[in-house]
Amino acid sequence: MDAFFNPQSLAIIGASNRKFNLGATICSTLKHLNFDKPIYTVNRKGEDVLGCKGFTSLHDIPGEIDLAIIIVPARVAPNIMEECGKKGITNVIIETSEFSEAGEEGKLLQDQISEIAIQYNIRFIGPNCLGVLNTHNNFNSFFGVKPGLYDKIFKRPGTISYVIQSGVIGTIIMDSFNHEVGNTNKMVCIGNKEDINEADLLDYFNKDNTEVIGMYLESIKNYDRFLEAAKRSTKPILIYKSGRTSAGAEAALHHTASPSSNETLFDKEGANAGLIRVNTITELHSMPKIFTRMPLLKGKRIAIFTNSGAFGGISSDLLIETGFEVPALSKELQEKLINTGRLFNASNPIDLGPTLARQTFRDIFNILLSSDEIDGLLAIPNIWKHTVTEAVLELEDICREYGKPAAIYIPHAVERILTIRKEYNIPSFTSAEEAVRALSISYNYYLTKRRNHRGGKNE
Amino acid sequence: MDAFFNPQSLAIIGASNRKFNLGATICSTLKHLNFDKPIYTVNRKGEDVLGCKGFTSLHDIPGEIDLAIIIVPARVAPNIMEECGKKGITNVIIETSEFSEAGEEGKLLQDQISEIAIQYNIRFIGPNCLGVLNTHNNFNSFFGVKPGLYDKIFKRPGTISYVIQSGVIGTIIMDSFNHEVGNTNKMVCIGNKEDINEADLLDYFNKDNTEVIGMYLESIKNYDRFLEAAKRSTKPILIYKSGRTSAGAEAALHHTASPSSNETLFDKEGANAGLIRVNTITELHSMPKIFTRMPLLKGKRIAIFTNSGAFGGISSDLLIETGFEVPALSKELQEKLINTGRLFNASNPIDLGPTLARQTFRDIFNILLSSDEIDGLLAIPNIWKHTVTEAVLELEDICREYGKPAAIYIPHAVERILTIRKEYNIPSFTSAEEAVRALSISYNYYLTKRRNHRGGKNE
Repeated sequence: MDAFFNPQSLAIIGASNRKFNLGATICSTLKHLNFDKPIYTVNRKGEDVLGCKGFTSLHDIPGEIDLAIIIVPARVAPNIMEECGKKGITNVIIETSEFSEAGEEGKLLQDQISEIAIQYNIRFIGPNCLGVLNTHNNFNSFFGVKPGLYDKIFKRPGTISYVIQSGVIGTIIMDSFNHEVGNTNKMVCIGNKEDINEADLLDYFNKDNTEVIGMYLESIKNYDRFLEAAKRSTKPILIYKSGRTSAGAEAALHHTASPSSNETLFDKEGANAGLIRVNTITELHSMPKIFTRMPLLKGKRIAIFTNSGAFGGISSDLLIETGFEVPALSKELQEKLINTGRLFNASNPIDLGPTLARQTFRDIFNILLSSDEIDGLLAIPNIWKHTVTEAVLELEDICREYGKPAAIYIPHAVERILTIRKEYNIPSFTSAEEAVRALSISYNYYLTKRRNHRGGKNE
Repeated sequence: MDAFFNPQSLAIIGASNRKFNLGATICSTLKHLNFDKPIYTVNRKGEDVLGCKGFTSLHDIPGEIDLAIIIVPARVAPNIMEECGKKGITNVIIETSEFSEAGEEGKLLQDQISEIAIQYNIRFIGPNCLGVLNTHNNFNSFFGVKPGLYDKIFKRPGTISYVIQSGVIGTIIMDSFNHEVGNTNKMVCIGNKEDINEADLLDYFNKDNTEVIGMYLESIKNYDRFLEAAKRSTKPILIYKSGRTSAGAEAALHHTASPSSNETLFDKEGANAGLIRVNTITELHSMPKIFTRMPLLKGKRIAIFTNSGAFGGISSDLLIETGFEVPALSKELQEKLINTGRLFNASNPIDLGPTLARQTFRDIFNILLSSDEIDGLLAIPNIWKHTVTEAVLELEDICREYGKPAAIYIPHAVERILTIRKEYNIPSFTSAEEAVRALSISYNYYLTKRRNHRGGKNE
């Protein structure tokens, strides 16, 4: 599998200097990103493309090829696949579309390719896909990308790996990391997934430097294998599954030839296997930080820390409605809190009012997180002073010290929230709902993993 | 009521030149906004504050005062209220806190004020509030505001009026209109609402230039009166109600002395009265545009228009799960659509693939919205070319022409969505979920209003 993500040499079949050639945009992106392994191109004229040496056939390329990217018309693809086999190439990405998603004729071509792959022991991604992107080595097989679009993504490689069945979704996720903490590690756009599918990638991402796995799927290729892989996973898997309704499934069929699945069953068995179903595409990039930046939530009792009376009430509602507890704090704990400064309310929600001393914030965080009365924190500080920002930054360390998470929401208009988050790298959410949702995801993941660890027995 | 929003003369009692004086920040904001009516201040020294003429007592101010703003310590407030009465002032905003929200002693002071008001025929907003803001005449009684914070809001007055029970929520809403289409018309922060309450303001906003009413409430003062006012309203009312759970209600009690209400009952009766319960604070500023910029949705049949196969599937799911229909289009209609350009899919979802001609977009919009097979449009164009933006801008006119709405979502990372929306003033939403939610809100409002119009009979 590793050759898909870390190819030591690369052939792009179908890249040429013709106008609008998609293969050329891959060469261009790789050059722009300074990908430092040999890149060869294969085209009818055997011409070089943007500095990538050109050949008329794969056969003529000297030495071994680690990975072939096929981006020729569908009807020619089987021949090229055969050439790959003869050249001894075992890893192929087929980006070409017009296969099974386009009808019966395409389906036959896809079957042909599959047979050739089996014959020559080739593993392949696609067809009808964008392939692979790895921020840790500047490898990127996505076509149609404007140079510069992914620069920010590749500048600070992350630990969140994605399996997606749509280029648009991939682009939205990566682009979102411009205003989100963390970043993409690897991303695979699997298209019609005739060979390599979501289960293979779950296993692979469990062995590499990935911390959290995100998936956008329109179908599940092999239901049982997928659930087994999910069960094996020691890393959280966030999954958005479209095609939940027959209308949605019908639409997916036109997109990536995805057959519909039994949603009710998947919902139940997926949850048992530890899959975290997300409600929106946004959650695929907003939720990982509750895992990468905070300890797991191991209990239901949440303390609310805020300097806004309104958000004390709003977030109490949200927590209770989500199944959490907002316990009244003991007299002893309240006294400790009162001693830190001039508080509006020392019960739960803890309302600071206009107090804005860094030490008060720090003291309260320590008192709450060290107490055995609470399991986690919902922190809603209305930040408009630098001193407070620093206190909120320290919160992450305090959470780690006590092994309890905080979900942070800084109540402002979303533009301002994004600006503060980017500037200070605070793992904050963009709404109280999102913060409560993160706590819920963390807690449910903890419960499932504990249950599976105990052999599937519920308490 | 109008004197609260359009005072012809103003006295701010408690504004002085002392450091951190809140009354002075009101003077400063009004001067900054070029509010052009006489502003007087009353303080112990009788000193002018930031150019606002000062007096030691209300009595000494020459001429009539249209509106008094009280921002003195709570224990002094009853005396000042009495002076207002003697001066013949009939409209007062009491911004001072430490009344019923602070305990028994404060409650007594609030009762005293109430009695004085009755005695002198004074109507008042508050106590424990920020008062009133009117973007159409630069009037703003909110204190603690940095000069410049609301400049953008006052530069382009809007038509959405708010009743809120929290300054933070008000600030978030107003700030959000920097990246949202439309804007605030008037905003009232009602605090403990001892006298003027949400019902009074519903009636008032039904008579002024308001198009949509938004409310953030922690309690309902007079349940029956409020529901009657809502039923009378000819304008949509979006309401976020906190204190839904006992924990949330407990928190609200500390904030604005709000007693809890029967939520199940309110949910049902509120919906019957035409109140639109929103799920998040965000919806208070994101949802009005489906009313201000689009015709009402009068049926369930939605056409999806997109150039992303993924969002075709995602939004089909969302629509069906929300109770809408995504009907397959007739052969005739599909043929008309196919004639417009090279489409990926002419059924529903209509998938354009990479086609990006302005005329194709325009033709498809016209064909769909003029057809009697569909009632509304979910438009998800992946915009990255200027020509397309223009086509999407025209969509609004086409919708008005046929009396059917479109909910628009331009699939990008949220930062980019906000930028496109601001630049082109497109009434677009920030997610597919939000767009579908808007259609749902529009349709439900239509159904309730039709039912009430027919004398409360369901079909």
